[in-house]
Amino acid sequence: MKVTIKDIAQECNMSITAVSLVLNNKPNKLSEESRKLIKNTAARMNYTPNPLAVGLAKGKSRTIGLVMSDVSNVFLSEIAKVIEREVKKFDYNVILGNTDDDGSRALSYVKEFISKNVDGIFYIHPAFATKEEEREIARVITQSNIPIVMIENDMRFMRAQRCVNDNAEGGYLATKYLLELGHKRIGSLLGPKGQYSVGMRLYGYRRALEEFGIEYDDKLIYRGDFTLGSGIAAMPYFLEQGVTAIFCYNDMMAYGVYTYARRNKIQIGRDISVIGFDDVFVNDLLSVPLTTIRQPRVSMAKRATAMLMDMIETGNREEKEETFSSKLIIRDSANPPVM
Amino acid sequence: MKVTIKDIAQECNMSITAVSLVLNNKPNKLSEESRKLIKNTAARMNYTPNPLAVGLAKGKSRTIGLVMSDVSNVFLSEIAKVIEREVKKFDYNVILGNTDDDGSRALSYVKEFISKNVDGIFYIHPAFATKEEEREIARVITQSNIPIVMIENDMRFMRAQRCVNDNAEGGYLATKYLLELGHKRIGSLLGPKGQYSVGMRLYGYRRALEEFGIEYDDKLIYRGDFTLGSGIAAMPYFLEQGVTAIFCYNDMMAYGVYTYARRNKIQIGRDISVIGFDDVFVNDLLSVPLTTIRQPRVSMAKRATAMLMDMIETGNREEKEETFSSKLIIRDSANPPVM
Repeated sequence: MKVTIKDIAQECNMSITAVSLVLNNKPNKLSEESRKLIKNTAARMNYTPNPLAVGLAKGKSRTIGLVMSDVSNVFLSEIAKVIEREVKKFDYNVILGNTDDDGSRALSYVKEFISKNVDGIFYIHPAFATKEEEREIARVITQSNIPIVMIENDMRFMRAQRCVNDNAEGGYLATKYLLELGHKRIGSLLGPKGQYSVGMRLYGYRRALEEFGIEYDDKLIYRGDFTLGSGIAAMPYFLEQGVTAIFCYNDMMAYGVYTYARRNKIQIGRDISVIGFDDVFVNDLLSVPLTTIRQPRVSMAKRATAMLMDMIETGNREEKEETFSSKLIIRDSANPPVM
Repeated sequence: MKVTIKDIAQECNMSITAVSLVLNNKPNKLSEESRKLIKNTAARMNYTPNPLAVGLAKGKSRTIGLVMSDVSNVFLSEIAKVIEREVKKFDYNVILGNTDDDGSRALSYVKEFISKNVDGIFYIHPAFATKEEEREIARVITQSNIPIVMIENDMRFMRAQRCVNDNAEGGYLATKYLLELGHKRIGSLLGPKGQYSVGMRLYGYRRALEEFGIEYDDKLIYRGDFTLGSGIAAMPYFLEQGVTAIFCYNDMMAYGVYTYARRNKIQIGRDISVIGFDDVFVNDLLSVPLTTIRQPRVSMAKRATAMLMDMIETGNREEKEETFSSKLIIRDSANPPVM
């Protein structure tokens, strides 16, 4: 017969609660002697915890919530897939909530995940969240004390652990490459306003310009929203501004630029240079293979999983941030300007 | 003061349970007279249900589970996004479980969704599920009586409503087009075995061959798994078989064919013709824009949502299937064979 906590409690002449607290490494006010007695008795009786009961005792549902901003964004869906595989190794399921980049939906999913008793949350911040929504998300997270790892976002509106790409470096690398090719009027196709990563990429863009002694011109900045559609929309504006190259803050918007170019018989890589950000799987197959900044999504997703698992296991909630380096991937979409 | 069920119960001199059952249209064993009395009293007292309480009484969590086979498959993630938007119109959230095409994970998500009290399930069957897993999924679904709509799959292993593409027609259209161009040795790059849709596309392939008086040759059949990698893997085999055209059962595998071709300096659309299935957003932007079969994902996702909402609202669980027509989208990847 399997030895239970009850058997150990009887053997030690202590309460079941006391034994459970000690064997599950929960905080308790027992003396060091009592703790030793319980542990030694458990060892002597060959006690092995019932995994289901352990889960219940620790309030574990073995489910992680993933708040995702846009599941149809190929870069993000690839991250979701890696996370799902990693988490599976720890025998957890992931349930995913797609916010469509809307702050109120992010809040709603955070609440829902907590009410559904998930053990932790991976969080990708929506592009469009009000300060109030951010405050409310932070309040709900803090109150519940749920482990949370933010991915791809170094926003500071709540206590969390974070896995972020070095976005300033990425923006710098992209812009520097275009400058080295000889471009001087470089359009900057931003992602949405709420995203800290966007601000950092813009910072990198400005730093590279400065290094090359080129004055920053806010006429060359266009606010996109990370969708293919906003890449299409940006093109007439950039062409009017006479840019010779465009730094797109993600690949999806670069595909929008390609789409517009295709419709208007503009040759990417000759008439206009384009550089993206993310490095999605199709880039090699495009009419003009896309030069881009590669984010290390697999290592990021793996590290994020390790961080969340650690928070769940240890109860540790200290803030922590890990930064990942970007890499310039040179293909054919950016070339010296035709004078 | 707002009138409650308790007030009505007192007024009618009946139990709160009885009043609740009648006002929530739940099955009950009350006489027709009692039912009338309760309803009339509620009307007379201007009773309006508390929406939250109604949700609780009906066991509604206003959450739908979506069992997804591969979130990094662009076609499927686009479907997920449309579903999420549609369901939002009914004020529901969607939580998504990615099975990575694994039957045991599909079963685990179905169980988890039910235990998390979702109101309904959208179900995309994983490519690799054993008969046992299918039986167990069917059993869990039937036992819980949860509304379920299967998408992109007309498998019969469980009672459900279904939204499916006319896969036989799609397979026929793709193959017929290649035959009309003059191809005679057409490779058939199948998706995974478990998928009913794959069988139907193969059926369409065979029907077209027959119509053109070309004998079916099983050496021209290669079993893929819907991933880009399996498109790459298929190519050496097909080249050895001397095919002049390949019908890929989804676009992701066609991208694999492109990848192999690129690496080996084979010109798609000239050295070999390729046709895909799904019509993912990047097809226009590829080095050779991909000719493919378009599945009407938006109408399919909308209809699936309407079906599930109806099942939830009415309690109707009858089997039903809606079929959607495919369309041939001609681009540049399929041309007459070079003799």
